[in-house]
Amino acid sequence: MAMRRRRLVGRHIARHGLPSTPPKGAQPTAPVRITVIDYDDRDLVEKTVETAEDCLPFRDKATVTWINVDGLGDVSLIEALSTQFGLHHLVQEDIRNTNQRPKVEDFEDYLYAAIKMLRWDGPRAEADIEHVSIVLGGNFVLTFQEQPGDVFESVRERVRTDKGRVRRMGADYLSYCLLDAIVDGYFVVLEKRGELIEQVEDAVIADPSPQTLQEIHRLKREGVFIRRSIWPAREAIAALERSESPLLSRHIRMYLRDIHGQITHVIDAAESLREMLSGIRDTYLTSVSNRMNEVMKVLTIIATIFIPLTFIAGIYGMNFAHMPELKWTWGYPLVWAIMLAVTVVMLAFFRKKKWL
Amino acid sequence: MAMRRRRLVGRHIARHGLPSTPPKGAQPTAPVRITVIDYDDRDLVEKTVETAEDCLPFRDKATVTWINVDGLGDVSLIEALSTQFGLHHLVQEDIRNTNQRPKVEDFEDYLYAAIKMLRWDGPRAEADIEHVSIVLGGNFVLTFQEQPGDVFESVRERVRTDKGRVRRMGADYLSYCLLDAIVDGYFVVLEKRGELIEQVEDAVIADPSPQTLQEIHRLKREGVFIRRSIWPAREAIAALERSESPLLSRHIRMYLRDIHGQITHVIDAAESLREMLSGIRDTYLTSVSNRMNEVMKVLTIIATIFIPLTFIAGIYGMNFAHMPELKWTWGYPLVWAIMLAVTVVMLAFFRKKKWL
Amino acid sequence: MAMRRRRLVGRHIARHGLPSTPPKGAQPTAPVRITVIDYDDRDLVEKTVETAEDCLPFRDKATVTWINVDGLGDVSLIEALSTQFGLHHLVQEDIRNTNQRPKVEDFEDYLYAAIKMLRWDGPRAEADIEHVSIVLGGNFVLTFQEQPGDVFESVRERVRTDKGRVRRMGADYLSYCLLDAIVDGYFVVLEKRGELIEQVEDAVIADPSPQTLQEIHRLKREGVFIRRSIWPAREAIAALERSESPLLSRHIRMYLRDIHGQITHVIDAAESLREMLSGIRDTYLTSVSNRMNEVMKVLTIIATIFIPLTFIAGIYGMNFAHMPELKWTWGYPLVWAIMLAVTVVMLAFFRKKKWL
Amino acid sequence: MAMRRRRLVGRHIARHGLPSTPPKGAQPTAPVRITVIDYDDRDLVEKTVETAEDCLPFRDKATVTWINVDGLGDVSLIEALSTQFGLHHLVQEDIRNTNQRPKVEDFEDYLYAAIKMLRWDGPRAEADIEHVSIVLGGNFVLTFQEQPGDVFESVRERVRTDKGRVRRMGADYLSYCLLDAIVDGYFVVLEKRGELIEQVEDAVIADPSPQTLQEIHRLKREGVFIRRSIWPAREAIAALERSESPLLSRHIRMYLRDIHGQITHVIDAAESLREMLSGIRDTYLTSVSNRMNEVMKVLTIIATIFIPLTFIAGIYGMNFAHMPELKWTWGYPLVWAIMLAVTVVMLAFFRKKKWL
Amino acid sequence: MAMRRRRLVGRHIARHGLPSTPPKGAQPTAPVRITVIDYDDRDLVEKTVETAEDCLPFRDKATVTWINVDGLGDVSLIEALSTQFGLHHLVQEDIRNTNQRPKVEDFEDYLYAAIKMLRWDGPRAEADIEHVSIVLGGNFVLTFQEQPGDVFESVRERVRTDKGRVRRMGADYLSYCLLDAIVDGYFVVLEKRGELIEQVEDAVIADPSPQTLQEIHRLKREGVFIRRSIWPAREAIAALERSESPLLSRHIRMYLRDIHGQITHVIDAAESLREMLSGIRDTYLTSVSNRMNEVMKVLTIIATIFIPLTFIAGIYGMNFAHMPELKWTWGYPLVWAIMLAVTVVMLAFFRKKKWL
Repeated sequence: MAMRRRRLVGRHIARHGLPSTPPKGAQPTAPVRITVIDYDDRDLVEKTVETAEDCLPFRDKATVTWINVDGLGDVSLIEALSTQFGLHHLVQEDIRNTNQRPKVEDFEDYLYAAIKMLRWDGPRAEADIEHVSIVLGGNFVLTFQEQPGDVFESVRERVRTDKGRVRRMGADYLSYCLLDAIVDGYFVVLEKRGELIEQVEDAVIADPSPQTLQEIHRLKREGVFIRRSIWPAREAIAALERSESPLLSRHIRMYLRDIHGQITHVIDAAESLREMLSGIRDTYLTSVSNRMNEVMKVLTIIATIFIPLTFIAGIYGMNFAHMPELKWTWGYPLVWAIMLAVTVVMLAFFRKKKWL
Repeated sequence: MAMRRRRLVGRHIARHGLPSTPPKGAQPTAPVRITVIDYDDRDLVEKTVETAEDCLPFRDKATVTWINVDGLGDVSLIEALSTQFGLHHLVQEDIRNTNQRPKVEDFEDYLYAAIKMLRWDGPRAEADIEHVSIVLGGNFVLTFQEQPGDVFESVRERVRTDKGRVRRMGADYLSYCLLDAIVDGYFVVLEKRGELIEQVEDAVIADPSPQTLQEIHRLKREGVFIRRSIWPAREAIAALERSESPLLSRHIRMYLRDIHGQITHVIDAAESLREMLSGIRDTYLTSVSNRMNEVMKVLTIIATIFIPLTFIAGIYGMNFAHMPELKWTWGYPLVWAIMLAVTVVMLAFFRKKKWL
Repeated sequence: MAMRRRRLVGRHIARHGLPSTPPKGAQPTAPVRITVIDYDDRDLVEKTVETAEDCLPFRDKATVTWINVDGLGDVSLIEALSTQFGLHHLVQEDIRNTNQRPKVEDFEDYLYAAIKMLRWDGPRAEADIEHVSIVLGGNFVLTFQEQPGDVFESVRERVRTDKGRVRRMGADYLSYCLLDAIVDGYFVVLEKRGELIEQVEDAVIADPSPQTLQEIHRLKREGVFIRRSIWPAREAIAALERSESPLLSRHIRMYLRDIHGQITHVIDAAESLREMLSGIRDTYLTSVSNRMNEVMKVLTIIATIFIPLTFIAGIYGMNFAHMPELKWTWGYPLVWAIMLAVTVVMLAFFRKKKWL
Repeated sequence: MAMRRRRLVGRHIARHGLPSTPPKGAQPTAPVRITVIDYDDRDLVEKTVETAEDCLPFRDKATVTWINVDGLGDVSLIEALSTQFGLHHLVQEDIRNTNQRPKVEDFEDYLYAAIKMLRWDGPRAEADIEHVSIVLGGNFVLTFQEQPGDVFESVRERVRTDKGRVRRMGADYLSYCLLDAIVDGYFVVLEKRGELIEQVEDAVIADPSPQTLQEIHRLKREGVFIRRSIWPAREAIAALERSESPLLSRHIRMYLRDIHGQITHVIDAAESLREMLSGIRDTYLTSVSNRMNEVMKVLTIIATIFIPLTFIAGIYGMNFAHMPELKWTWGYPLVWAIMLAVTVVMLAFFRKKKWL
Repeated sequence: MAMRRRRLVGRHIARHGLPSTPPKGAQPTAPVRITVIDYDDRDLVEKTVETAEDCLPFRDKATVTWINVDGLGDVSLIEALSTQFGLHHLVQEDIRNTNQRPKVEDFEDYLYAAIKMLRWDGPRAEADIEHVSIVLGGNFVLTFQEQPGDVFESVRERVRTDKGRVRRMGADYLSYCLLDAIVDGYFVVLEKRGELIEQVEDAVIADPSPQTLQEIHRLKREGVFIRRSIWPAREAIAALERSESPLLSRHIRMYLRDIHGQITHVIDAAESLREMLSGIRDTYLTSVSNRMNEVMKVLTIIATIFIPLTFIAGIYGMNFAHMPELKWTWGYPLVWAIMLAVTVVMLAFFRKKKWL
């Protein structure tokens, strides 16, 4: 019920320099919002602007400028921004293509990274996957998201309050912080999934129901999407780490190596969750089958005990003229005794065979 | 029923410079049609020609010439065209061999690409796989298809109406557009398959029937063929991307990298569909087995309740001369009461054991 | 029944320069036959010789000499031939070792290739696997086979009738033709297997019997052997393609690349067949299990309907003195009516539950 | 019951040079204890110190200094120590992050290794996994552990009593000894697991119970964690072996190669245990299913024998006015004879069919 | 019963230059025997010596010396020998560590190879795995085995009787011969296993019993050990083949390549056996399940036929005062006729449904 269907396959959008049409997959109704944060170690400007032109003044200042766009529905805006910052039209299309695979590309003047942002949607108890583009230039970082709401709030807070070293570093450090926040988001999602999976495991042991199985299947299905989001991200970050772009200062690489390690850890954890889920599924099936077997066994034993007894009763229900037992004074109690004996013998036999 | 059997194995055709015979696997009855589109940024000629010789005038012009051949049945035509454009006899054989594995080969004067074109056959609800050859020369592109009907219509339209940058670019860009259209076709097919698979998934949850299982098997089988078509195509395009052929201009490589990314995405998606299908199959089996268990359990419980009752009835159907209960005025109601009590106790027991 | 047991493991033969003993695995009773075909673009000599010495005259002529040996039983003959053509004693042992893994080795003066020849044995409906050795020298090709009968007839015919370019090319082209004929043989075998597998699939859907399952297992088992024959052959041919031996002229490499592509295609096809077989096996098991479930369900339903009816009959078979219903004029028809009602209600319940 | 839940996913701790907060996952209540062992081939000082400053005198001596910290809860202490020994703040975070993946990093002045220490917890019969950091500098080794209690006691003993060559070697040999002790710990844990698994195997063969299955699942689950601890350790040690750091003397590499071999052996053994567990699980399931089948078969056979007998009794319980058999003097014994005959025939049939 | 438990995990022995203690895993009670074979192309000395010192005279002669030690229990002997031949203490430990993983290490003055020797233990019908160390120096070969009895007898025989070329070659050829004998031993073991597996397969088809399944599991378990013995051996021999040690003459590499090929063949064969075993296990399970289904079906059909008949009998066992049928003269025969009809109809129905 709670599962919002995710599309399995996303078509890639039309290109070839044709007049742009709204990309499939993007939600054209989402409101577009541009936020600019411009800072150096002394000053900070943070404001929401309306048009691409409003960003122009920041571009040419020596300060670090972070322009964040929420919503991919306004094609002309993305085009205007891209033109201002000199982005290739393939990059524009990648920004708008919400089904873009995580990747990093080096365009000399800037680096382009497509990555998936995972956030945990508490009420629906599932992961929300969002396509995020990060463009790193000499003194600017552009980020494009599908929707308002992101995992970057801690980064903004650090910039605003001048915590840590972010205000004293360049745009490359800012983009590292953003990537780090995204990878942190992966941990949060996996932790939540881990908790869910442990709940499911408990449910399977305590009382396996078909709903539990459906939940297992839902979690597995979700895992497929998460894997498809995270695996290529590792390659992308490894490519960034190896990259020789002058946009990345030497000591940033150590931070990138650290993120690389973190994402490897994420992948290990995701793999473990996957194995766990498979294990739980097996446990579920075995458990259901055991329970069923138990039922059938007990019922069959009941039937098996009564069938011979009924047979005995049937014998003395026959109407033969000459059945001496019927005339015996103790015939009836004797039959009861026989039946009792048969029952006791059978129960003893079953118990000996460990069927009971 | 609807499934047209695809051949699992295709034999490769005779070669060694022998007089050609119609290759096995090609449909010799398909009508052959040659279409020429010749253009530069100002002029465009599009016409259907009858013989290979009619293509000769276009070959030596500086304009970009795209010759498309529908149907591989006319061996002498392919030979004539190949001779005109200087194609190696191995290439001729690859063009005609509809079971050729996707690949790219560099013959210095031209590049040869064999690739599979996938189109969705709506009525039969399955993918149609067609062998396509693309030959890229200095100023010409040759394409060979098994049948009329292709995914290139959007490219033709762009050339005709001078949309995008295709008319201002060379033959390499045209061949990129064709490859891109083919990869776009892969997305369409996978999307359709994705929809089918989701329908099947719904059917499995709602009402699993053997037909559903057969559909699952059909989709799996189809997946095997699609995988065999697409996987090698990725290698082929990667080889093209790495190729140092002077026929590919420098900026084309960026487009090829983009196609490479797209086809990697296609493969990811196809893998996800495969996992989905396996998951659905498991769900189906579990669901059928659960349902069966449910049936057996209820039926067994009914039997188990009545068997002791029948036994009691059997007891008082016995004809012993001395059965005091039979004489009791309240004997009969008492038996009913006992039976009722037995039933209630058993039902309570079953309910306590959660068997009901 | 029809399955000739293939040995799972073949021991490698004694070596270390010891006096030769007939290798285990070879059939010493097979008659040995030496055929020589010696040709250039003008002349052709084809004859059957008796001894290794008879081959000597051909060795030193500039013409291409193809010596084919059917049967590996005559150790001294192989030694004599090997000495004449300067083969290393390890090669002699590889020639005789019918369990030799496919491989290519470069001995500078000659190249040695061990490969498996697959032929379809129609009557037994299974593949026949034969160990073939090909030795390529400057102007000679030696081939050694286990038994008479091979896939080289088409090559011989082309040489005899001067079809194609084989008579105008060197020994390397001849050996390419032989390899090509062997790979063609792989296609034939896989096609036949494909047909068998499709028949089995039809049988599984139409009427699954244990015989079908045994056939599936037989085909799987055969697949294991075929895989072991073909997989290493791909590596071997790739090694040949990469080889820098002067014995291989430059343009031969293009042909070898072509064979490499073909054998990759063969492996793809074999993998598909394997997946098909697994799928068919699953279908079989599901189908048998479904059928069984169907039987059990119907039978259980029949039993379940009659058990309450029998209980009712049992009630009125009791011999209580005071059973008012027994005296009622309409008692008997009433019981029938009750029974009918119970049956109808139960059937309706089963139908509603979709158990019928 | 005995299973202490291990967290499946561990979030990585906050960083970016922010004022430190206690890392999640570390147990802040664990007491922190610093032990210093300072030695050369003649002298040895071993003492427990209170503050980071107390370690300072040892740092600048030429002797080898091993500082071990038990407990990661005191953030300021770790910071102070790190500052003294010049550790990067990323290293500080790795030290405190108990979910850190095993890795080795070269910071030129020192090498940092994160590794998991496995100890067997006898009473709970499961492995205890602890995060250990080893920092190797020119003449010092720092180790950080989560809790008191480790596998290093044998190393300490060797240093104290001057056994072996450790007192005559440098800090690199000491860190090798520590790694070696950790890998030895892996063997101990795997051996204990191996013994448990063999016990479980015996239990499965002797008397498979659901508890056995739960134990199998617990062992599998534990195996997932152990694998995640050991696999990356191999990579880390391989990186160390290949490292060109001047901190590692040439002959240490041979020892590292040896550890690498040992850890490969550990991984082989762990894989074997995993396969064993899967095999045991299969055996369990087959065994339970066989047992169940056996029960059902015997019970069904009993029912099947009595059902026809009851039918016969039912026949002669009918009240038809004209049933000649009922008047026969030998009718009743005859019926018994018939019943006996039916039983014998059925038993013979079952035995012939090998159902009994 | 016959299965001697193999230890799943072997701990590695203590080291670090400590006074040696008997390694765990070695059988200290095994008698130690030293045999020396010293030869060149003219002379041969073969004798059993008592102490390491007795080997000293042979070390410094130009002849090839092969010293074989049976039994690893005498630590001081191994130390003495190692000192004489200049072996590193890590090598000494590897020699004594019977759980050492197969490997090859180059110590410049000598090469050390640890390998597993497999012998078929006929009476117990299982493979015997023994740890063998081979040390190759300039003019000597040392071999260390766990127990008397090995696969080297054929090599000894060749040396003694001067068969083949071994007497004319150096120590490297001798060590090749030993490796070759070991790999030959692998073939023998796999062949025997192959035969056993074929027997098991026949048993599964003819009459599947739980014993068969236990045998399958035993063979699988044994396969795990064999795989762990052979797989690393391939890597080790490949390393030897690639080694640039001057101890290996150029033409020896061709022999090593040959062994490498053989061991690859062994691994292929072992993989096939593994697949076979899995297939047989599946066949077993299917076969048992089929048989069970068959039983249940027949029994259920018998029950299903009699239940309605018993119901009919029950009807006419009722004691209603007004049951007209009971008075009919032909009532009784009519009931029999009805019962017969019901039976026939049901049988026909079952037959039509192919349930019989």
